[in-house]
Amino acid sequence: MEKKLILVTNDDGIAAPGLHALVEVASRFGQVYIVAPDSPQSAQGHAITIAEPLRLRQVDMFDEHEAWECSGTPVDCVKLARHVVLKGRKPDLCVSGINHGSNASINIIYSGTLSAAMEASLEGIPSIGFSLLDYSWDADFSAAQHYARILIEWVLCGGLSGCNLLNVNVPKLPLSEIAGMRICRQARGRWEEDFMEGRDPRGEPYYWLTGRFVCEDDGPDTDVGALMRGYVSVVPTGHDLTVHGAIEPLRELEQVQAKISR
Amino acid sequence: MEKKLILVTNDDGIAAPGLHALVEVASRFGQVYIVAPDSPQSAQGHAITIAEPLRLRQVDMFDEHEAWECSGTPVDCVKLARHVVLKGRKPDLCVSGINHGSNASINIIYSGTLSAAMEASLEGIPSIGFSLLDYSWDADFSAAQHYARILIEWVLCGGLSGCNLLNVNVPKLPLSEIAGMRICRQARGRWEEDFMEGRDPRGEPYYWLTGRFVCEDDGPDTDVGALMRGYVSVVPTGHDLTVHGAIEPLRELEQVQAKISR
Repeated sequence: MEKKLILVTNDDGIAAPGLHALVEVASRFGQVYIVAPDSPQSAQGHAITIAEPLRLRQVDMFDEHEAWECSGTPVDCVKLARHVVLKGRKPDLCVSGINHGSNASINIIYSGTLSAAMEASLEGIPSIGFSLLDYSWDADFSAAQHYARILIEWVLCGGLSGCNLLNVNVPKLPLSEIAGMRICRQARGRWEEDFMEGRDPRGEPYYWLTGRFVCEDDGPDTDVGALMRGYVSVVPTGHDLTVHGAIEPLRELEQVQAKISR
Repeated sequence: MEKKLILVTNDDGIAAPGLHALVEVASRFGQVYIVAPDSPQSAQGHAITIAEPLRLRQVDMFDEHEAWECSGTPVDCVKLARHVVLKGRKPDLCVSGINHGSNASINIIYSGTLSAAMEASLEGIPSIGFSLLDYSWDADFSAAQHYARILIEWVLCGGLSGCNLLNVNVPKLPLSEIAGMRICRQARGRWEEDFMEGRDPRGEPYYWLTGRFVCEDDGPDTDVGALMRGYVSVVPTGHDLTVHGAIEPLRELEQVQAKISR
């Protein structure tokens, strides 16, 4: 296969082992550029930095691969990669991760990892977000690397159809115990929040967000379901948040409005 | 109508005129609580604050209404409102805005205004995000207030069906020139970015994000199309990013994987 141009990013930051694990895989398939946040940016969602300038600094952490750290969010990294680092060249693929922790179900909307991949996909670049269901810094990424290799090859060979973004989650299992891959839909779920309340050294109150994920969907075809059965979950993902089925029922509102204001 | 519990938030910050305009409307329908960012948080997407504590301070800017400013993102505001300010009580409605600027099309995924409303909708609270297509601080919110009144009444009377989040955008027109309301789908579009490059006082380079919105969808049923024709656009909005139509075509991938690794 011809050498491809591959952009690698993440949200755990330039020093995260998951990023290095993904660079190792991606570099087998093409010329790799790394542009990642200079500090952890988990849960940044699709945030972008508009009120202040961004910094971009070349770093020497990835052997022969050109790598940059950025002061902004994961989405900022993708924008800067395209416009500054690659000077407008369009990558053949953007991969984000490997995230330390799950991005299945509703986590996708909070996730910097997936938002970075989504930003690239909005620019027409086939993109994959990878996450491993293990939050620890010294997680074993070898099974996730195995599936990343398969999926990157598949996407670079033109396998994607009908969408250009995959949300991939890998269970915390040795490779030999993973049951395979399943194409899934995003499970309905939410976070049940709590706040740790405390007082700072000056006696001022603070609130620190915590919580637990609650899956509200026991369908057999969801990402959460597949992961629980030991499969790697692959969700074809887009950007359309419209509830199309609610458009016709709401048409009545157009008439109500006419009654009230005309 | 019985007095309802209404949470009001935004992303432009507690001092934004658009927030005050929305509080004025919402307070006709119920007991209003305001929890908003203490500084502008535009383009924060669905970001949440997990790496540091949040601050919450009661403010005296809304006459008889209880109001709090929060150091976090718009989504943080909704979480803190539920769990600290309202002590677990569930609002009958959450309204966010009125945003200074459009949140039609793909803007929804960058928007703090809509992310705040979406967060409330995830918790089962009927929610509406309002935006006016006028970025100026002294924008005329009277037409937007007129439609906010209609929509808030409609939602509080149980009008929503099949979704619990509306993305409402109002054209920059006098009320008399607005053609009415249209129920729409989110237009396909993206931002074409650019970066202003410069040197700071120490001679270090910086990059400042700028760009322009490009609509890639000329369908007559989109929010962007409705706004261009002088209508208020109302998009029923959810949280499922799955591209359902791409699931079956991708099943082939499950076999490829079996071939390679088994």
